[in-house]
Formats: sequence, C-alpha cells, structure tokens
Amino acid sequence: MMVPAFDDQFTLVMIEDDAGHARLIRKNLERAGIGNPVRHFEDGAAAIDYFFGEHLSAAQTAERHERTLVLLDLNIPHIDGYEILRRLKGDPSTRAIPVIVLTTTDNPREIDRCYEMGCNVYITKPVEYDNFSDAIRKLGLMLAVVKVPNTVVK
Amino acid sequence: MMVPAFDDQFTLVMIEDDAGHARLIRKNLERAGIGNPVRHFEDGAAAIDYFFGEHLSAAQTAERHERTLVLLDLNIPHIDGYEILRRLKGDPSTRAIPVIVLTTTDNPREIDRCYEMGCNVYITKPVEYDNFSDAIRKLGLMLAVVKVPNTVVK
Repeated sequence: MMVPAFDDQFTLVMIEDDAGHARLIRKNLERAGIGNPVRHFEDGAAAIDYFFGEHLSAAQTAERHERTLVLLDLNIPHIDGYEILRRLKGDPSTRAIPVIVLTTTDNPREIDRCYEMGCNVYITKPVEYDNFSDAIRKLGLMLAVVKVPNTVVK
Repeated sequence: MMVPAFDDQFTLVMIEDDAGHARLIRKNLERAGIGNPVRHFEDGAAAIDYFFGEHLSAAQTAERHERTLVLLDLNIPHIDGYEILRRLKGDPSTRAIPVIVLTTTDNPREIDRCYEMGCNVYITKPVEYDNFSDAIRKLGLMLAVVKVPNTVVK
C-alpha cells in the first residue's frame, strides 16, 4: 500500500528531461513508499511558469509555494537548472522550498555553485546503470524521512 | 570494508547531546558504509568554538569550513541548535556547509523556522525506538549519495 511520506500532503515537482531517469526516479519513490503526487516538467520554462506564472491566482500561487519539494536536473532545455535554482532561492515566497539537485555531472565547482545558490542537497547520478539505480533508491529512502516546510502556518 | 562516501574526504560534525542517539547515528553511518571522520560535540558552545574560535589559525579555520557536513540536534545545552544554524548560515565562510537538522520535535513552525534560517534538510527522529532506528538508517543511506561542497576550489 502506498502512503504519503509525511503526515501532511506535499507535492514532488520533478524537473527532468531524460525520460529514462524520470521513470527510474518514479519507480524508486514508489518502492520507498512515497505515494505523494508528482508534477513532472521536462522543460525549464514550464517549471518556471508553474511556480511564477502571471496567470496564476493568489490561491494557486500559495498552493504551489507550500508543501512542495523540488527534484532538479541541471541540464534541461530552455531555462536551465541553475536559473530555476536562482529564481526559487532568490524569491522570499519560494525560498523555503527544499531543492534537491540531481545531476550526472560531478564537477566540484558546479557542486559549490549550487550550494552557494542555496540548493538543499546535491546528489550525483552515476553514469553506470547499477550505481545510478542505487543512488536513486537511496534518494527515495531519504525522502521518506525528510520533513518539508509548510509555509502556511505562520 | 569502510570507504568514504565521497570521492574526496569530508568530516561529519555531529552536534548531539543524547549519548544513545549519538551511538545510533554512528552505528548507522557505519552500516551505510560511511567511514569518514566524525567530530562529536555534546555542547553548542563547543561546536561554535570549533567553527568560529578566535584561537584558530587561518589554515584551521579554512579546514573546518571546507568539506564538512553538520548533523544538528536542536535541543542542546549552552548554545542551542537554532543559534548554531543562525551562525553557520549567516556567515559567508560557512554558509555553504550542508546542515541536516535532526530532532525529536515535530512542530511545523519549528520545521518552517529551520528552513527559513537555511537548514538544508530537516529530519524528525521518531520517539519509538524502531521508527527512530529506521529514520537514522535512512539518514545514513542518504549521506552515502549526497555530495558536499568543497569551498577551496574557487
């Protein structure tokens, strides 16, 4: 049986353009017992629109800025992961959303840059299938114990 | 065989005054294959001194501000976890150090406050032994895939 990982509902926003990676992430979230809704964007511009679109009502904006956790690939089309991270962490209304950067690159300068920009956790997706699968499995287990903020209660 | 979780060495700074919790954390880090050095502080003032002590040489300060990951309990004596989080995230030289808040309290306002102060991950330690042990096991697995920043490379 699938149960939400948290006492309270939250939504996972997955920003990932590789269909194989996205499938593996979903499968491992399910295996870790995480039954929360997943919003999947393959494109950075669509993700930015989800959080900051001008057509959104105040209620929609509030809903999308609360009880959300972001899984962010860096190399995505149109607006890259750095820019999404900059927008999310630079805006007071989205700053508290935990952002997990999940990428195949392992460049120390890139890791530094993400932490300096305020990413919460940086995880490397290994290129070999077995290690990749193992990393994603551990990510799922981790999410099962992490608490997300609820910016409504203030 | 124990291997470091990262390509490069890093130190885990565990700030935890409960000896039982500290033992369980160490045991589960080992089980997850994390053989990195652990600096354990039971007292907030000692932890602040470790990072910001005036008697430290520039080289010692740099060493302690790089390749470090902090596991932080909130309810510790002398200087509490909030103040340690405020100091670490308020100082440009320590801001990039990942801080995992690990506490038994499950108050949504406390979770919010920690994320607003810049904590990287908030994990609740359940009060029941089995669930507690499971949460700490997942924390260990998570640390095995997380990358820490190396603020030297700039």
